[in-house]
Formats: sequence, C-alpha cells, structure tokens
Amino acid sequence: MPINAQLLDNPRSDRVRRIADLSRTKARRKNGRFLIEGPQAVREAVRYSSDVITDIYVAGDEDGIDSDVLADIAQRALDKSADLYIHTATREVIDHISPDAQGVVAVGDIDKLRAGMKAEVEKASSYSRGMRVAAFWQVRDPGNAGTVIRAADAAGCDVVVFVDDCVDMLNPKVIRSTTGSLFHIPVIAMGTNDFFDWMKEQGLDVWAADVYGTRKRKPESLPDVLDHMRGEDHRKDGYAVLFGNEARGLNGKTLEQCQRIVSIPMYGKAESLNLGTSAAIILMSLAFTR
Amino acid sequence: MPINAQLLDNPRSDRVRRIADLSRTKARRKNGRFLIEGPQAVREAVRYSSDVITDIYVAGDEDGIDSDVLADIAQRALDKSADLYIHTATREVIDHISPDAQGVVAVGDIDKLRAGMKAEVEKASSYSRGMRVAAFWQVRDPGNAGTVIRAADAAGCDVVVFVDDCVDMLNPKVIRSTTGSLFHIPVIAMGTNDFFDWMKEQGLDVWAADVYGTRKRKPESLPDVLDHMRGEDHRKDGYAVLFGNEARGLNGKTLEQCQRIVSIPMYGKAESLNLGTSAAIILMSLAFTR
Repeated sequence: MPINAQLLDNPRSDRVRRIADLSRTKARRKNGRFLIEGPQAVREAVRYSSDVITDIYVAGDEDGIDSDVLADIAQRALDKSADLYIHTATREVIDHISPDAQGVVAVGDIDKLRAGMKAEVEKASSYSRGMRVAAFWQVRDPGNAGTVIRAADAAGCDVVVFVDDCVDMLNPKVIRSTTGSLFHIPVIAMGTNDFFDWMKEQGLDVWAADVYGTRKRKPESLPDVLDHMRGEDHRKDGYAVLFGNEARGLNGKTLEQCQRIVSIPMYGKAESLNLGTSAAIILMSLAFTR
Repeated sequence: MPINAQLLDNPRSDRVRRIADLSRTKARRKNGRFLIEGPQAVREAVRYSSDVITDIYVAGDEDGIDSDVLADIAQRALDKSADLYIHTATREVIDHISPDAQGVVAVGDIDKLRAGMKAEVEKASSYSRGMRVAAFWQVRDPGNAGTVIRAADAAGCDVVVFVDDCVDMLNPKVIRSTTGSLFHIPVIAMGTNDFFDWMKEQGLDVWAADVYGTRKRKPESLPDVLDHMRGEDHRKDGYAVLFGNEARGLNGKTLEQCQRIVSIPMYGKAESLNLGTSAAIILMSLAFTR
C-alpha cells in the first residue's frame, strides 16, 4: 500500500514540471504516460481501469488529505491496486500540474490503457449480437470529442472509433469532457480505409450521419430507420454510425464509402443541431430500439 | 431605406457605450432594448422577426460594408422592414460593442419581441392538436439556456417556458447559443405556480424529466413512454416536459406537482447526460412519434 509519506510542496520541481508537461501530445508520446484531471475522471479511472493508473496526486498538507471526497478516492485506489502510488501535494503543486485538477490528478500508462481497450474491442466483436459502433471522422474539438464519447457510453455502444485525423483522445480536455466515459468504453483510432475494411470484416454497413447526402443519394430519415430497427428481425442487428467533422461534416469521398445515409429531421425552423447533440440523439434513439 | 451615411468610428462615443451596455440586464430593462450578436443570430432575427429590430451595426469603412455575408444581411433587413436603420461602423467600434459580434450586431425592441411571442403562444394554444411545451426550471447557465431553446426549436415544440428563477433569455450569450432559435420559437418566463396553473388550463399533464424520481414514484423509462405515444390514439396528444436545473435537477416540491416522471435509461456505464443533451433526446424522440 504505497503512500508516499513526503508532502510535495515545490511547484517548480522537476517532477511537477514533468507531470504538468503530459498535457502536451509530444510529452505523452515520449513518456508513454497521460494525465487524468479532477475528482470525477480520476474516480471513474479508479473504478474501471485502476491497473492503468501509476500515480495519484492529491491535495493535502502534513496532516493528510484535504477533503473526504479526495481521501475516499485515494482509499478506493489503494483498495483496488497494489501497484499505484498516492502522493500528497500542496494545492499550489496540484494547481501547477493542472489548473483543472480540482484537487486531484492521476497519471496513467498509455500502453496499458490501449491494451485494455483492445481486449474490450475483441470481446465485443465476438458477441452473438451485432457490434454497436459509434465512429467520428476528423473530430477536432476536445470538448466535442469528450461529449460524443460520453453519449456513446450512455447509449451502450461497444466501441468508439476516431477515424482519420482526430484530436488525441488522451488530450486532458477530452478526458475531462467524457466525465469518466473514457474508462467505460474502448476508444480506438484508425485511418479511413482501415475503418471501412474493419466494418466490412465485421459484416456491418456503415451509416453516415449527414444532413444533405449526395446528389445521387438523399438521406433516409432517422425515425424511418428506427421503425425498421424496431422490427423483431432486426433487434440483434449491430450498427456503425459515422459522424463527420463538427464544422464541415463528412466529405464526398467518405460519404460514398458509406452504405447508408441517415439524417435527423428538423421539425421547427432550426437548420441543424451540433455534433454532440446529433450523436446523442441518433445513438440513444437506436439504443431505445434494442 | 434608412442607411446612416456617416461611418461610426469612435469606440468611445456615448452611443457605442450605450449599445455595449445592453449586455447587462439592468441596461436592457431600463432601455427596453436588447442585443443580437453575430451573423447567424442577426440573420435569423431579420428572417423571422425583422419588425423587432431597430438598428443594425455592421463592420465597414468609407467604401461600404466589409464582406458579402454582412452586406447580404443588411440588404435583406432593408428589404424586410422600412423601420430599421443600418449603420456602418469600424471593426474597432463593432468589437467595442461586443467581442462576439463577428462584424455585426443588431439592437431589438423588447416589448415588440414579447408581443410577437405572446401572439405565437396564443396561436399555439388554439391548435386542434395538443400543445407541445418544453419547460425549464431554474436553468442558470446562458450556454445551456441557448442550447435547450435550439433543441426545442429543432423538435418542433410550440413554446419554451423558463420557469422560476432562470437566466434572462435576452442575455446575449443565451441568444448566441440559440443560433437564431430565439427568433423561431416563443420563449416565455413565469413562476412555478403560474406554470402549473397554465398547463392545467391547457389540459396538459406535466412530465418531469428526472433521473431519480421520489421515494413514492419511480420514473417511467423514456422508451416505454414513446411506445405509448406512438399509439394511434395519442398522435395528437400534446406534452409538457419540465427539465430541472443543470446541477441540482428539480426539487422535491416541484417534482410532486408533476403528473408523471420520465427518465432516460443509461445503457452503458455513464451515470447521466447533461441538461442540453437530455432535453434534445427527450424532445426529439417525442417529435419522432408524432
């Protein structure tokens, strides 16, 4: 039960600088470590992926940890894993590591996280029912990326795929925006061709979520698709929905590779909904048909 | 066709200060005017509520308006209404009025907006089908308030009600977050008792959107409610869904006044969804059943 007895109190120490540095992609790649900020994300990481965590830094002083909430997180982590270290640090040190820490940050092992996610995906692809895939092409905004991972989790998807050039899912702002869902559902990244090849292998049609469609193919309306999916014959069908970039949607070439195009009808005068909301509506209403 | 020929170029003038001041509730109340910021919101205001607009301030110089997009908005406004004034102002002046203007701001008349909204609500309450009401209790965050108005618009609701102590719907950040929907759907504010009285008058049950319910009443699951609403006998039924505060939900007293409690089931490991996403899922999936 390794608790580091020594209080970390120097915000300018090399150690603190190295941890804070993990907010940058380059440092994550170099060190194979990533940051988990804030009580909610750290608590969910402890609950579902404690083996991934190497260290937890929690606010306190010589007398112990600052608050019951933080002490509880530390205790649960120790109960779960013999391999992680708890360090007490001053608020100043914690805030130096991350201004969004709210008193606690954890450091995770990227290879272990990815290995766990890979195993989850393999498990899902062996289910007797079809796999439920939420895919996002070129999602760039960290807040959006986190929101869509959370929506896919809530909708009971088996896997989230970040297709082509997306934001790094280990960006701390992405993790924060998932409110813990990054530790609930596997998220994997791959190129566009690899994605379509994999879906073909899995026997899944890819549905583009797209308002306009192409000149040749008008989108099907989501409620019609749902009516179809509610039919007894389709209850066990899997699905793979591909959402486009938050500003530009999907490009023509990617749309053409999709087997179907689905759009959310607008009933009032609004022109559209944003990516996070659209993804939540489509994925949750699909979940309602299962 | 009143275009003000004189370029506004003094960001420290009284006029500019007075307009910028409309970002504050007090100044709006005192002057009976409100601010509409940015091309998207101003364009939708011009399209659907041009009679509300008194002035439009658009970025330009001695040679005219800055860009085709802005010139197009100004032209449409002039085509629509003989009563509004277009002013060209330097970018510096526009940015002084609002850092979120992106080259254009409009000033609207609060009484005219409210009168138009009141007429819309009266029209809706005379429909032969039931009224579709999206109500929000104590919504405090301007971004959330805007997002839920946009969702209610997309879902074809007839009216949005801000119940009890909500953020001012004329807060510029609310209007921006609606991406124009404030000019598509009437939004009215009232106290909790007035809301329940009005719904009773309309013959509408109020459904609380709530994850937990009370000790005596467990929430019904949204998909079950939708199955019921899809039945032929209920296609013309109206609905009134009441959503709680973004952090605290609905309080017990308000929950007790609702006839039904509805919750969105969670299929994965996520604990909940945020207010904006929950509202979009419930309102849109209800729209799919109509």
